Amino acid sequence: MKNAMERLNELVMEKGPLLAGLDPDIDKVLSMYAQMDGTEDETLESSNESDDYLEEVMYDFCCEYIKAVKNTVAAININIAFFEANEMVDTFFEVAYIAKQAGLFVIADTNRGDIGNTSKQYAKAYLNEYSPIDAITINPYLGTDGVIPFLKMAKKNGKGVFVLLKTSNPSSSEIQDLELKDGRKVYHEVAKLVDNWGECTRETLEEKYTLVGAVVGATHPSDAEFLRKMMPNTFFLVPGYGAQGATAEDVIVNFDDNGGGAIVNSSCGLMFAYERSPWFFDEIQEWAEASRIKAEMVQDELVKALYNKHKNQ
Amino acid sequence: MKNAMERLNELVMEKGPLLAGLDPDIDKVLSMYAQMDGTEDETLESSNESDDYLEEVMYDFCCEYIKAVKNTVAAININIAFFEANEMVDTFFEVAYIAKQAGLFVIADTNRGDIGNTSKQYAKAYLNEYSPIDAITINPYLGTDGVIPFLKMAKKNGKGVFVLLKTSNPSSSEIQDLELKDGRKVYHEVAKLVDNWGECTRETLEEKYTLVGAVVGATHPSDAEFLRKMMPNTFFLVPGYGAQGATAEDVIVNFDDNGGGAIVNSSCGLMFAYERSPWFFDEIQEWAEASRIKAEMVQDELVKALYNKHKNQ
Repeated sequence: MKNAMERLNELVMEKGPLLAGLDPDIDKVLSMYAQMDGTEDETLESSNESDDYLEEVMYDFCCEYIKAVKNTVAAININIAFFEANEMVDTFFEVAYIAKQAGLFVIADTNRGDIGNTSKQYAKAYLNEYSPIDAITINPYLGTDGVIPFLKMAKKNGKGVFVLLKTSNPSSSEIQDLELKDGRKVYHEVAKLVDNWGECTRETLEEKYTLVGAVVGATHPSDAEFLRKMMPNTFFLVPGYGAQGATAEDVIVNFDDNGGGAIVNSSCGLMFAYERSPWFFDEIQEWAEASRIKAEMVQDELVKALYNKHKNQ
Repeated sequence: MKNAMERLNELVMEKGPLLAGLDPDIDKVLSMYAQMDGTEDETLESSNESDDYLEEVMYDFCCEYIKAVKNTVAAININIAFFEANEMVDTFFEVAYIAKQAGLFVIADTNRGDIGNTSKQYAKAYLNEYSPIDAITINPYLGTDGVIPFLKMAKKNGKGVFVLLKTSNPSSSEIQDLELKDGRKVYHEVAKLVDNWGECTRETLEEKYTLVGAVVGATHPSDAEFLRKMMPNTFFLVPGYGAQGATAEDVIVNFDDNGGGAIVNSSCGLMFAYERSPWFFDEIQEWAEASRIKAEMVQDELVKALYNKHKNQ
């Protein structure tokens, strides 16, 4: 069986490099619903609603979103924090199942990480053999022994992990960009660790991508270009496109020469497409339909940028 | 109102520096129960039991443990991974409430951390005004903008945060000990950030400890000694005592001159005291009573080590 990143890479080559992010902020969802109903002047806030109602809204929104994007994208990135914030971790797993059944590669954005015996528990939670999740994001700050339990369970159950490497936020420089004695930066050393972790899990030399991927923010294109060359066998999850200011040109440096090797996350831009450009979607009157159209537009934009890069090589 | 770390420091001065860790590994719990019943030869594994039964076992074990240690310790450190692994996040919160009602300072060992808008959701999940949790552990790898939402909500709701600084596991050296251009190490820079985050949340100059604490592993006593001097206003959570090999002498360097400023975690040593030394607890026949006695012994050991340090100053 192919490892998770090889499977993801095939899906990306087939459907394109857009990763549909699902960060369901319940207040934003209620506000978009109110806008659609023309009731946005009534104060609709999650704190005024019953838990059962909110859980229903959350579940319905996630299901509709998955239905809207499933034909356009290869994968979905579900951010567990937005479920934890509303005591809806059960809903998170239900939504992950729906996404899996819809044929999507399911990434759980969890950023977990601890010492070995605790990481083992997190690995069990998300990467067990019955889990609908194909890969999770993890944090490298504790080093190899905190990462091994994730690698072991991922290898055993055909799953993958994405290690936070160079994140998209402005403060990522504070620790990740610290200059080391030998002139390299902290994230270069983390990249070396990630590459090693990948090689340790390798089954055959035919694997182009190991099961250990990396999170590389779109907001640092020159860093990404460097990392792409340094880590030819690491699949990149690229956040920060759109909302955080990175353009299609910024993200294409993350891809390999075949247009594979990376997937580009867009969350709020897709989820709240209707609310953000009501004038554009004026004739639609359906937020999910707006999300569907927006996903197609962004997918096209990325594919075009990749095509132009290839043409100019 | 005093901030969370000032409150914790007062409790430590009153009851002693032992922090009861709660890492309820369901398989270990079942195995200890089988040992007590004399049925350890029957294969008792969590995978063979119904979910309802396991949830009951988990809840009962945690409640009994809290009852056993509540008079001896100031605080409890509940590791959420062991609940996530069994789809029991609801039980985690129930147990946190029980601990709070028992008068304990409740730390949630979560190691959460992400970019700002996601950290805000994690902060809402654990540090909201109705939460039984007094403080959580967080990961610093993404830098200030990923930490601010935790600081804001902690300050607003009288809670605290512990930032992973120098962890107790062997691989902690891989990233945390990397040598920087100026000869310092990565964790020294993280210490500077933690100190700044604490100062930014300071209400009055009378606060000895800011609401931002740090996790400093007991397994690196010379690093801890350096950090104690460098960060006089940061309260330390010290893991790695006992199970990971650190002695009472190793941990006392984390304390201030008054015997405050730090709390020392012990998890498996207390939880599974009965199983680990059945010969010692032969006449007891109750695992919780063994945990109670063990907690008193460890608390005494730490208090004595602190007293000797003070005497020799």
